[in-house]
Amino acid sequence: MVTSLLADRMKYIKASEIRELLKITERPEVISFAGGLPAPELFPVQALAELSSRLILDDGQKALQYSTTEGYTPLREKIAGRMKKVFQANIAVDEIMITSGSQQALDFIGKVLINPGDEVFMESPSYLGAINAFRAYEPKFVEVETDSFGMIPEALEEELKKARHPKFIYVIPDFQNPTGRTWSLQRRKALVNLASRYGVLVVEDNPYGELRYEGEMLPSVKSLDSEGWVVYLGTFSKTLCPGMRIGWIAAHRNLLNKLLLVKQGADLHTSTISQMQINRYIETEDYDAHIQKLRRVYRMRRDTLTQAMDRYFPGDVYYNHPQGGLFAWVELPAGIDAAKLLEEALNRNVAFVPGAPFFPCTPKKNTLRLNFSNMPENRIEQGIMCLADALVSLQ
Amino acid sequence: MVTSLLADRMKYIKASEIRELLKITERPEVISFAGGLPAPELFPVQALAELSSRLILDDGQKALQYSTTEGYTPLREKIAGRMKKVFQANIAVDEIMITSGSQQALDFIGKVLINPGDEVFMESPSYLGAINAFRAYEPKFVEVETDSFGMIPEALEEELKKARHPKFIYVIPDFQNPTGRTWSLQRRKALVNLASRYGVLVVEDNPYGELRYEGEMLPSVKSLDSEGWVVYLGTFSKTLCPGMRIGWIAAHRNLLNKLLLVKQGADLHTSTISQMQINRYIETEDYDAHIQKLRRVYRMRRDTLTQAMDRYFPGDVYYNHPQGGLFAWVELPAGIDAAKLLEEALNRNVAFVPGAPFFPCTPKKNTLRLNFSNMPENRIEQGIMCLADALVSLQ
Repeated sequence: MVTSLLADRMKYIKASEIRELLKITERPEVISFAGGLPAPELFPVQALAELSSRLILDDGQKALQYSTTEGYTPLREKIAGRMKKVFQANIAVDEIMITSGSQQALDFIGKVLINPGDEVFMESPSYLGAINAFRAYEPKFVEVETDSFGMIPEALEEELKKARHPKFIYVIPDFQNPTGRTWSLQRRKALVNLASRYGVLVVEDNPYGELRYEGEMLPSVKSLDSEGWVVYLGTFSKTLCPGMRIGWIAAHRNLLNKLLLVKQGADLHTSTISQMQINRYIETEDYDAHIQKLRRVYRMRRDTLTQAMDRYFPGDVYYNHPQGGLFAWVELPAGIDAAKLLEEALNRNVAFVPGAPFFPCTPKKNTLRLNFSNMPENRIEQGIMCLADALVSLQ
Repeated sequence: MVTSLLADRMKYIKASEIRELLKITERPEVISFAGGLPAPELFPVQALAELSSRLILDDGQKALQYSTTEGYTPLREKIAGRMKKVFQANIAVDEIMITSGSQQALDFIGKVLINPGDEVFMESPSYLGAINAFRAYEPKFVEVETDSFGMIPEALEEELKKARHPKFIYVIPDFQNPTGRTWSLQRRKALVNLASRYGVLVVEDNPYGELRYEGEMLPSVKSLDSEGWVVYLGTFSKTLCPGMRIGWIAAHRNLLNKLLLVKQGADLHTSTISQMQINRYIETEDYDAHIQKLRRVYRMRRDTLTQAMDRYFPGDVYYNHPQGGLFAWVELPAGIDAAKLLEEALNRNVAFVPGAPFFPCTPKKNTLRLNFSNMPENRIEQGIMCLADALVSLQ
């Protein structure tokens, strides 16, 4: 009955394979490298509990009421300040709109920019949630050859030349999802340069940038752009908590005005109270110290993961050593399908996400993503041992 | 620079004239009939402050974490129970998805159902936020002749016969926005019957249904539908608080599955903590008593408004006496433009929303909407006096 009434775009909108898989991995005995969940034991529960009740008592008539589409100005001011301090980006407060997580910003970018058939350039692989959000607007995805320093500029330029309706280049330059890779400064500069020369936008998605465990912080792509080609997405999901769904988008005013119109129609505004809670947290607590704590804990988990892979994985398995973020990336020998490995792993109560769905066009079936933020070290080590055992059973 | 990159659909997405107007009316000296804001002094501030801090302390690791796209199951169970108790609708829990306000449900309905040029049938006038949300998907709006009992079935059938790609009929049967009108039981039955015969969906938007000040509660359109043609939208924005952005959509499983896919791409899920806060409020406080209190206060404000109009408005102005909700509707003599009246009213520090933008196709310029929920009685009376004075100045 209903299916005959669906819009054509629904042909392109698919279930996220990850979110389906996550349901299976909820059993407590499963050691899961599958999700991208932050460690809940690090949420600042005590501080948030206290400030939430004070906030509602002091300011409840405002916190519980409708508010503006662009977001709570004191929070937007703090975001502008932090983007300057941490990522060297000069953003005016009125170039920032609060979104319901950065996933919402991805959807809005698709809605504002993509006509069916327009080219969207992606790292290969790239974030599945971005692929799914954009897909609803029927773009043509162009996978750009990518190495461990980011997109290869010559390859990108080649694709830009060939494109008929190029719209934007979507990148995650810091500790990418799914690969954990970080772009070099040189590649960042080359990207902005190409965007300006070819008149296309860059969408810089930066949910993990604060979570660096070694090496020097690099300037954001946004900070290298003086002409307004770069749209920047940020979020508190990985640095504070994802449950409140507070992210932001920073863009040239012309574009931000369009994004505001789309948000008006999409949900009027983001939760007033959650914006005020996060604003008050930053105002009254030591946010820097909190992030230092996250870095310490996640660094240990990353080290445990890579050391366990060094110790237990067969020599013909490639994996990287991410400088930050939540993920490492594994390439199995060419003949091995990660979906098969997942079956064997689940038999051993270990879960991960196969890499194939992260490729917008041409899946590499011998790849997989490992998350290390959501488990203590002993389970990480045990999980890698089981995964190594599952690997051996396939060879 | 940016404008040449915009998607074609952006031609159809306009700023809400109301939200622009609301910025002007924020000055404290303005008596505003313009917004649709609930009374903030009735928010259950004390209860929410206490339960919020307890919730975060007891269950913070869950409340602050990512959660499922469909929403927090205990809250969905409570919604199903309330829809049964208040609106006689039998809905299974897995037919309910939590949304970020019902505005988000409107956007998703557009995304899942509308191809460019598809017919969407609307009351005339209808909710501006729905018109704006649907417009992004480029439908053809069909205004159906509507009287004080709802859409006229013969007129609706005529339009359904003429339509080429009829998709859905959007209605607000209880205390409609903007007119305050309520559909009769007979009209509700006729609507479901026509939807079934012509194979189109009904979207029943019911944000105000609990706020009845006189007369008998009528069954929801959803409760009259045994075949799954009716999609129902609800929200806690008017009965508890809008700042948390918690609404829901109830639909046939086939359609709900598609709505879930769209929500995955649009924002992953709605705020975990706000869902759990509202669930705990219903669990531990007396929600029925709270709604009784809202009814008492809003009833007095409605009475003040209509009595003041009786007393002060010229005899050639038509207005209605809404049985519930937040709005009354005014029709001025044919030659008077409500936009002109608004200028005169703003000179007297009184604001309202002209009716024209609420008409999807053919604006009636001599109409306006008055909100009565957001002000104490003395200001309502004073505001109507000033409005009457502004009216006289135009005649």
